[in-house]
Amino acid sequence: MQMTCTGIAASILTPATGHGQNNIDNSRQKIKLGLASYSLREFSLDETLDMTKKVGLQYIALKSIHLPLNIDSEGMKTALDKISKSGIVLYGGGVIYMKNETEVNQAFEYAKAAGMNTIIGVPMPETLELVEKKVKECDIRVAIHNHGPGDKVYPTPETIHANIKDRDPRIGICIDIGHTTRSGVDPSEAIEQYADRLLDLHIKDVNKATADGATVEIGRGIIDIPRVLKTLLKIKYDGVTSFEYEKDGKNPLPGLAESVGYVKGVLATL
Amino acid sequence: MQMTCTGIAASILTPATGHGQNNIDNSRQKIKLGLASYSLREFSLDETLDMTKKVGLQYIALKSIHLPLNIDSEGMKTALDKISKSGIVLYGGGVIYMKNETEVNQAFEYAKAAGMNTIIGVPMPETLELVEKKVKECDIRVAIHNHGPGDKVYPTPETIHANIKDRDPRIGICIDIGHTTRSGVDPSEAIEQYADRLLDLHIKDVNKATADGATVEIGRGIIDIPRVLKTLLKIKYDGVTSFEYEKDGKNPLPGLAESVGYVKGVLATL
Repeated sequence: MQMTCTGIAASILTPATGHGQNNIDNSRQKIKLGLASYSLREFSLDETLDMTKKVGLQYIALKSIHLPLNIDSEGMKTALDKISKSGIVLYGGGVIYMKNETEVNQAFEYAKAAGMNTIIGVPMPETLELVEKKVKECDIRVAIHNHGPGDKVYPTPETIHANIKDRDPRIGICIDIGHTTRSGVDPSEAIEQYADRLLDLHIKDVNKATADGATVEIGRGIIDIPRVLKTLLKIKYDGVTSFEYEKDGKNPLPGLAESVGYVKGVLATL
Repeated sequence: MQMTCTGIAASILTPATGHGQNNIDNSRQKIKLGLASYSLREFSLDETLDMTKKVGLQYIALKSIHLPLNIDSEGMKTALDKISKSGIVLYGGGVIYMKNETEVNQAFEYAKAAGMNTIIGVPMPETLELVEKKVKECDIRVAIHNHGPGDKVYPTPETIHANIKDRDPRIGICIDIGHTTRSGVDPSEAIEQYADRLLDLHIKDVNKATADGATVEIGRGIIDIPRVLKTLLKIKYDGVTSFEYEKDGKNPLPGLAESVGYVKGVLATL
């Protein structure tokens, strides 16, 4: 069964009013900060929402661990209700892999049902024709994510751009600044170069600019974070900047909180 | 029994080499960052050292909960051994209250035995003559701490300064920027005004500039932290800037880590 995406898209990128629990000084927040929920892959959806609030993030992109791709409509309703009550804005899902027609259709049905405006995904090049059709039908954006040196298809923003440059502008890039750095590519230069296709961003730090580099707390690694954020402001990036903290899977909160604090400190000073 | 402080003072303010566990990029660290261990008052000394390392702080001032004022020499040896192994530099003790001669003598014996170079204290004005004598004997500094509107003796840096301005320069001020703000005094102005007597600093954020203001994660409150840090750099402050995170007593690590990240982010951008 192939769904066609018609209907009114919700205005997702403005947090609901009346949810003041996060205690965030929005006046200082020049960039929308969110969470890539893969960071909290060892925790339930409820725990993930609590921890996201705890660190003061307003946006979330859910990984399938927290919202399964094959969830039924009742499960979806329960999950969306929890998210709505948390005050956190569900803006995307991912990273979602799409190898064939079935997986592309499933991803768009899922994103549509969840009210996501962005799929952070890895659609194989041979699916891009169909992906573009679905993007037009559903008005849901697809931000293709680069996974660095070990990724045979999309290691860098450049390889993604080569595949999508002639397609609908709602097919773009989720630059992962860690994997980009591990590929030997400067993430600030990539952000500027592909500004018109930058639809999502994974922010993190890594300890080496080589394939074996690993995620560390933001500020303890080698990425020039102030320059990355300055570049995002320069290009007037209006998507979400999502923390993907892969370290400390079982106890990620301190390192995630330190990373969030660091980015907010930089933004308050720029 | 009154001890006289002779003997060689250890060079405390340089971290021991060979303790690279903290994974800190020192080149970006323009200011020495430490912990006021009152933040971790619900935890043991061992847990406190682990958590201090976890958030990447190199200096610590211990509260008596973690190193009792009446500890015996064997207990002191065990504790100092743990601290030495952690790689964290014990630079001070406090806040230590001193109401009379006995308490002044105890504080200096304790600091001397622990190798601390600074007592962060509240010596009553009538003890200051003796405190000055001990400072000269022991070459241990006393940074008097202001506790804000509820403090009848030393609410503000100004009230401390009035009591010490003609005494030995090793008697100075530990400006608590939270309590200073709650007193309606701008902490950056106080830092600049009393620069020559600034021996220690408690960094935090508060949600209101009034007596009922409470500690929040740094960056979520009303204190202009970039300006505070810019002022510390301007006066070439060479003491420790210690985090005192009073919120979330039973689970302080995320908020403390966020605060540390924020300050490091600001410092990386200034």
